[in-house]
Amino acid sequence: MSFSLLRQSLTRPISSSSRGSFGLLRFLSVKASAITFANTGIPKDVVKLVSYELNGPGPDEILVKTLASPINPADINQLEGVYPSMPAFTTELTPEQPSAIGGNEGLFEIVEVGSNIKNFKAGDWAIPRLPNFGTWRSHALVTPGDLTPINRDGITHTQAATISVNPCTAHQMLTQFVDLKKGDWFIQNGGNSGVGRAAIQLGRIWGLNSISVVRSRDNLDELIAELKDLGATQVITEEQLNSKAFKPTIKEWTQGKPIKLGFNCVGGKSATGVARQLGHGGKLVTYGGMSKQPVILPTSLFIFKDVSAHGYWLSAWTKKDPEGKGKAVEEMLNHIRSGQFKDVPVSPNVWSNASSDEAKLEVFKQALDNATKGFAGKKQVLEFTD
Amino acid sequence: MSFSLLRQSLTRPISSSSRGSFGLLRFLSVKASAITFANTGIPKDVVKLVSYELNGPGPDEILVKTLASPINPADINQLEGVYPSMPAFTTELTPEQPSAIGGNEGLFEIVEVGSNIKNFKAGDWAIPRLPNFGTWRSHALVTPGDLTPINRDGITHTQAATISVNPCTAHQMLTQFVDLKKGDWFIQNGGNSGVGRAAIQLGRIWGLNSISVVRSRDNLDELIAELKDLGATQVITEEQLNSKAFKPTIKEWTQGKPIKLGFNCVGGKSATGVARQLGHGGKLVTYGGMSKQPVILPTSLFIFKDVSAHGYWLSAWTKKDPEGKGKAVEEMLNHIRSGQFKDVPVSPNVWSNASSDEAKLEVFKQALDNATKGFAGKKQVLEFTD
Repeated sequence: MSFSLLRQSLTRPISSSSRGSFGLLRFLSVKASAITFANTGIPKDVVKLVSYELNGPGPDEILVKTLASPINPADINQLEGVYPSMPAFTTELTPEQPSAIGGNEGLFEIVEVGSNIKNFKAGDWAIPRLPNFGTWRSHALVTPGDLTPINRDGITHTQAATISVNPCTAHQMLTQFVDLKKGDWFIQNGGNSGVGRAAIQLGRIWGLNSISVVRSRDNLDELIAELKDLGATQVITEEQLNSKAFKPTIKEWTQGKPIKLGFNCVGGKSATGVARQLGHGGKLVTYGGMSKQPVILPTSLFIFKDVSAHGYWLSAWTKKDPEGKGKAVEEMLNHIRSGQFKDVPVSPNVWSNASSDEAKLEVFKQALDNATKGFAGKKQVLEFTD
Repeated sequence: MSFSLLRQSLTRPISSSSRGSFGLLRFLSVKASAITFANTGIPKDVVKLVSYELNGPGPDEILVKTLASPINPADINQLEGVYPSMPAFTTELTPEQPSAIGGNEGLFEIVEVGSNIKNFKAGDWAIPRLPNFGTWRSHALVTPGDLTPINRDGITHTQAATISVNPCTAHQMLTQFVDLKKGDWFIQNGGNSGVGRAAIQLGRIWGLNSISVVRSRDNLDELIAELKDLGATQVITEEQLNSKAFKPTIKEWTQGKPIKLGFNCVGGKSATGVARQLGHGGKLVTYGGMSKQPVILPTSLFIFKDVSAHGYWLSAWTKKDPEGKGKAVEEMLNHIRSGQFKDVPVSPNVWSNASSDEAKLEVFKQALDNATKGFAGKKQVLEFTD
C-alpha cells in the first residue's frame, strides 16, 4: 500500500534517467507532514508530527493532497493498541524507530498523476479503497488501487470525508443480515452516534421503522426532536429500554410486528435490552462496545426465541468487497445530493499546511482530545488547507 | 393430540352401536395411571398421580403402553412453569381443575390397534412424534400421527426411551450450523451431560475432533477416562478452559486449526470460555443454561473474530421437521445396534402398574428428586412393568 510507494518515491532520485523520459512530468516536490505513532498507549502521548519532502509521482503513481479526515473511534483504538488491525510500521519517515501514519478515513484531491495513469486526473476526488491508509497526512503518493474515486458534484469535503465509515456501517448492517421489507422494524442503541444517525436516515429512505435508544441527558427533548427530524420513528432512553413497564408501549408502536434486527454499539445492559426487544428469529448485530462491557444475553433468547447474535466489522467487509463498498458510498452520496441524507454533526479543526509543525500537532492534539471525550457529540474532522 | 383422543375414549360408552360393528375389536379396558400437574411450582409439590379406566381403541386409534420414560431437565422446567412450551391442560383426568400429564420422551409398545390402523400392530414400538406428549403415564390412546415407529431389533427399552432428546440434540447441533469435515474440531461444555456424551460419540463416528469441558470433581480422572473411552479427543476442566496459561495446550492439540463450533449448556463464564476458543467465523450454539447465568460474550469476538451465537431448541425443530427427527433417531439406533453408540448412564426407577397409587407416586417422586439433584450424574428413567 501507500507505505511501499512512499518508500519508492523517497529513495528514488528526483531526476533519474528513467523519469526524465516522460516529458510532461513536472518535477514537483511538496512539503508533506503526517501524524505518526511508533508506540501505542495514551493517544495524545504517542502521536508525533513528522514533516518530509515528497517527490512528484512516478509514471504509475498519483500524488494526492488530503482535503479532510475525521478522527474515528477505531483510529483512537489503533493508537491505544487495542485494535486487531493496524497500519504497517516502517522506518521510512522515522529512521530512528518504525512508525505508522494514523487515520483510516478521509477525502483526497488528485494533485498530479503519473504518465501511465488513465482513470484519475488532477482535481478528481477519491477516498481510501482499503483500511489502514494513514489519512492523517497532508499528501500521499499512491497507486490507483489505493483509491476509490468519487464524484465531487454537490458534496462538501466533510461529507465525502465521513461517508465511508459510519454511513457504510449502517448501510451494510441494514442490508446484510436480514432482508428487511418496507414497514419492518429495527432497534438500535447509540442512536445519536454517527452510525445511529445514518441508520435512522437510511431507514427513513427505505421505508423502515426504527427505535433508537439514547442516553438520558439534559437536552433530551432536543435530541429526540433532532433524531425524529432525521426520520427516527421512535426514540427512547436506556432506562425505558430496560423497563418492563415500557414494553407495552413498544408493542403498541410496532402493533405486535416482530422487531427483526437490532444494532448494538454499547454492550452490557444496553445490549441485553436491545436483544430482549427482538422478535422470534431476530438478529442482534454488534459493531461497537462503548460501555466496555461484554454482550450479555439471556439463554432463553437463544433457545426459545431463536435470536442470534452477530458482529459487524467494516474493515473486514471493505477488504473482502471494496467494490461493494464503493457502490454503497456512491449510493449514499446520491442521497446527500438529493437532500435526503444529512451528514453527521462535525467539529472542524483547521490544519494549515503552511503553519509550523508545532501548530499542526497542536491542532491535531486538540481534535484528538475532543474526539476522546466525545466533545459535544460532534465528530472531529481535520480540514486541510494550503 | 393425545388429550383430545383421551377425551373421546373416556366419554364414549364402551359398547356403542358404532363400535359394535367392528367384530374383531376386543372391548379391552385397562387401568391406567398418570403423573399430572395442575399448577406449576416446586416440582415435587405440584405432581399428582391420577388413575383412570381407559377403553380399548376406536377404529382410528391405537392403545399403547409405556415401557420407559426418562425425566429430562425440560420436563422439570415445565413443572416449574419456566418453560415456554407446555402440554395442554384439560379437565379430562381431573374434573375439579384442569391438569396436564408430564413427560416428553418415552418408549411405547402398541397394545391394540383400531380396525382402520394399517401401519402399526400389537407389539410394535414407537416414540412420541411431537413434544408435550405426556409420557409419564402407563397407557395412552393415540392416533398414528402421534407416534414415530421405531425398529425394536437389538435395542433396549432404555435406549429407545432416551434416544430422541439428548442424542437428537447432539445430532442436530453437529449438523445444522456448520458443515464440519473429517478432522474438524468442536468444543462443548457439559461434556458429561447426555447431549455431551452423544456429541462425543457422534464426533468419533464422523471423524471429528472434540474438546469436552467438565467440572472439576473428586473422580475427575475416572470421568476423563470414561469420556475418552466414548471417543472424546480431549477433556478439560472449566478451570483449564478459562486459564490463559492453558491456551497454548489447546493450540497444540488443534495444531492451529480453527475450532469451528461450540456447544453451550452452562452459560456464564463457561459460555465465555467456550466462545473464546472458537476460531474466526466460529459459531456458538446454546442449548441450555445450567448455571442460570446468561451468555456473556466479549464484543471483540463478535466484531473482530466474526463469531456468532445461536440457540438450539429440539422442540422447535421436532415440530418443524418430525420426519427429519425420525431419521436422526433411526440413524442413531443403528449406531447403537452396531455397537458404536453407548447410551447415557441410567438410574432405573421401576413403576409397577400393579402397585398402589401411593407406591407409584412414591417411585416417581424419588426419581424426580434424584433428577433434580442430578444424582450421581445418571439419567432417571421410569421403567414400567405390568
